[in-house]
Amino acid sequence: MTPDPRPFRVGLLGHGTVGSAFAGLLAERADAIEAQLGTRPEISGVLTRSRGDFDDILDRSDLIVELIGGLDPARRFVLRAMESGRHVVTANKQLLSTHGEEIFDAARAGGVQLRFEAAVAGVVPAIRVMAETLAAAHIERVHGIVNGTTNFILSEMTRTGATYAEALAGAQELGYAEADPSEDVTGKDAAAKMAILARLAFNAPVALDQVSCEGIERITPDDIEYAKELGLSLKLVGSAERMDRGVAVHVYPAFLYGDHPLASVGGAFNAVTIESPAITEITLSGPGAGGIQTASAVLGDVISAMIPPPSLPPPAVEQPIVTDVEFSFYLHLEVADRPGVLAQIAEILGLQGVSIKSVVQKGLGEEARLVMVMHPVLESKFRAAVDLISRLEFVREPPRVIRVIEEVFV
Amino acid sequence: MTPDPRPFRVGLLGHGTVGSAFAGLLAERADAIEAQLGTRPEISGVLTRSRGDFDDILDRSDLIVELIGGLDPARRFVLRAMESGRHVVTANKQLLSTHGEEIFDAARAGGVQLRFEAAVAGVVPAIRVMAETLAAAHIERVHGIVNGTTNFILSEMTRTGATYAEALAGAQELGYAEADPSEDVTGKDAAAKMAILARLAFNAPVALDQVSCEGIERITPDDIEYAKELGLSLKLVGSAERMDRGVAVHVYPAFLYGDHPLASVGGAFNAVTIESPAITEITLSGPGAGGIQTASAVLGDVISAMIPPPSLPPPAVEQPIVTDVEFSFYLHLEVADRPGVLAQIAEILGLQGVSIKSVVQKGLGEEARLVMVMHPVLESKFRAAVDLISRLEFVREPPRVIRVIEEVFV
Repeated sequence: MTPDPRPFRVGLLGHGTVGSAFAGLLAERADAIEAQLGTRPEISGVLTRSRGDFDDILDRSDLIVELIGGLDPARRFVLRAMESGRHVVTANKQLLSTHGEEIFDAARAGGVQLRFEAAVAGVVPAIRVMAETLAAAHIERVHGIVNGTTNFILSEMTRTGATYAEALAGAQELGYAEADPSEDVTGKDAAAKMAILARLAFNAPVALDQVSCEGIERITPDDIEYAKELGLSLKLVGSAERMDRGVAVHVYPAFLYGDHPLASVGGAFNAVTIESPAITEITLSGPGAGGIQTASAVLGDVISAMIPPPSLPPPAVEQPIVTDVEFSFYLHLEVADRPGVLAQIAEILGLQGVSIKSVVQKGLGEEARLVMVMHPVLESKFRAAVDLISRLEFVREPPRVIRVIEEVFV
Repeated sequence: MTPDPRPFRVGLLGHGTVGSAFAGLLAERADAIEAQLGTRPEISGVLTRSRGDFDDILDRSDLIVELIGGLDPARRFVLRAMESGRHVVTANKQLLSTHGEEIFDAARAGGVQLRFEAAVAGVVPAIRVMAETLAAAHIERVHGIVNGTTNFILSEMTRTGATYAEALAGAQELGYAEADPSEDVTGKDAAAKMAILARLAFNAPVALDQVSCEGIERITPDDIEYAKELGLSLKLVGSAERMDRGVAVHVYPAFLYGDHPLASVGGAFNAVTIESPAITEITLSGPGAGGIQTASAVLGDVISAMIPPPSLPPPAVEQPIVTDVEFSFYLHLEVADRPGVLAQIAEILGLQGVSIKSVVQKGLGEEARLVMVMHPVLESKFRAAVDLISRLEFVREPPRVIRVIEEVFV
């Protein structure tokens, strides 16, 4: 598809949380996409339970985005769309883990694209990395935290010592778990995603009911507490493994040692670790759910269907390079241990607009060591303050400065 | 490129660690690639300092893999290849961060693909994810640990309390640092990679000398020790940020709070975190260097150049689903606190071939709690042992079993 005055018409099936977020994101990014690809995407029709006609929308679309979920009518719509030569983007894990081969065959027969990044781990690009980066790799094993609800519940149990029931209630209140949480907490949602990942990793058709599956309902605070002593953290893990005898796909609560790349994945995040002899392992992580995040994964798929992914960045646009920016800073001072020292240092910092977030002071006989972390401040102001501080007669050694980065999302 | 009896001819420039690993990997995977794509890749010629002729190799190639490194003659070869209509795959960060626009323009003019995943973060697929998954995203910031040598040195300083000089010497002995480590430890290698990432994230041409750059040479064990008390870990971080005033690109040692996704990236691993409002953030991590790993990233690029990345997995091949596999298990038992209990339990485990890795025993008055972690064992054998144990009269509650996953690579 080269520069084209006609828009790329996207028919949208489903207008729930993800569907409406997708429609909004597409409208917001349409200018940027047109500037980059030469073709503008637009929503050509929306099907909900109460309005819209599928055949009518199909007629007016180049691509169908299926966000209805469940098996039917999603299956029927997706097959019909592909038979009539439309590309399909879907986030439907049930459909792909139950009727995957039928759907893949129909896409092949129709000569259309079928993309489904959002079906597995939210914005975590596991599908694309397996299909492209690792196209020639011999994948041995995939481990995943592919259900955000259960990871949130286990993270809360670990953080607060709450029981499973308490943590579940909290997750429901915050919107991280549904009123009927059984799909998530029994591991069935994760099992569907692992079936899809196993299909891609090993080329093996894995039906949902072939995934051995255990949930988190029987986990007690005790289990988590004891495991902490052994340096272990508890996650609901999906595992797909190539064995001499075939393929093994499981979902189960598991303890991970602290140095496992999935051990530090907290809250409602998802992550997938892919192991292969040549690459050792790659880990991908990010938000596992959320309307706008899932919509973003869907939009990435739509763009790939509009035009083959480019191997080149678009021509560059000159932009000013900014060197003086805001940072949090760590400041380490060796000073004489006498009254008024901290006050003078704090005054100089304050005059430059530098605000102290935390201080550790240690007496060392005649001397004292001050270690501070500042709130974010323009580097030039902080350096000016440090320059003044370094000239104070009670400062014994050149001040040591290191930047500090805070995580805002987890 | 549809099924084709002619091979896809790859001309290889450079035959050092990565080059020879690439040639080996390509030979090893050629059958699988041919089965999947219908075209077989083969090395059509190799240029080293002492043998081969560039023009001759160019004549006999569809694609040139440039693994010479440095600016010249790499720049000349890459430009010549693209002018004569050959695709190029390169791992050359110096070339792209210094002459990026010239190289991109030449690829555009020649109508060829230019792929460079291995130039930035080893097997970590940062380039592909930014160019494809996030093609329509408004990227606000990229944080990266993009130099494995410095991350290894800082990890060792943290783990052992060693000085910078000691940790560097250790890294040199183990082959993680070169005899002249200045490119790595001064942050210049990371700066080149961040310039490339900034170019992709913001479409801004960023020259290597516009990246503010600070190395790790002046870091002391003291800095790391104090920071631990504040829950901070020290990394050499590259940062590229979109600002109102333009674009800011920095490399500096920074403290990260424990919940930052880069905080747990240890050893010689690389990782990149990409932030955008719609996706929140994605983190990608994996080995940052190593001949075979880098070669694997190069091969992924070669395959993408051979044929546009497919949107569908290849047809499935039936494979047995294995349900009884080996796991490590955690076993939690509430037992009467009397002599011989542990011995009886250990005997039953031993008879089933289950070997105990660690035990924690706690007396609780009349009762005791036994928490054990086993070495990997076939699940059926372990369950048989647990079934026998659960029938012992001194076992007070149903045994609790959870799987344990060990990280073997970090």
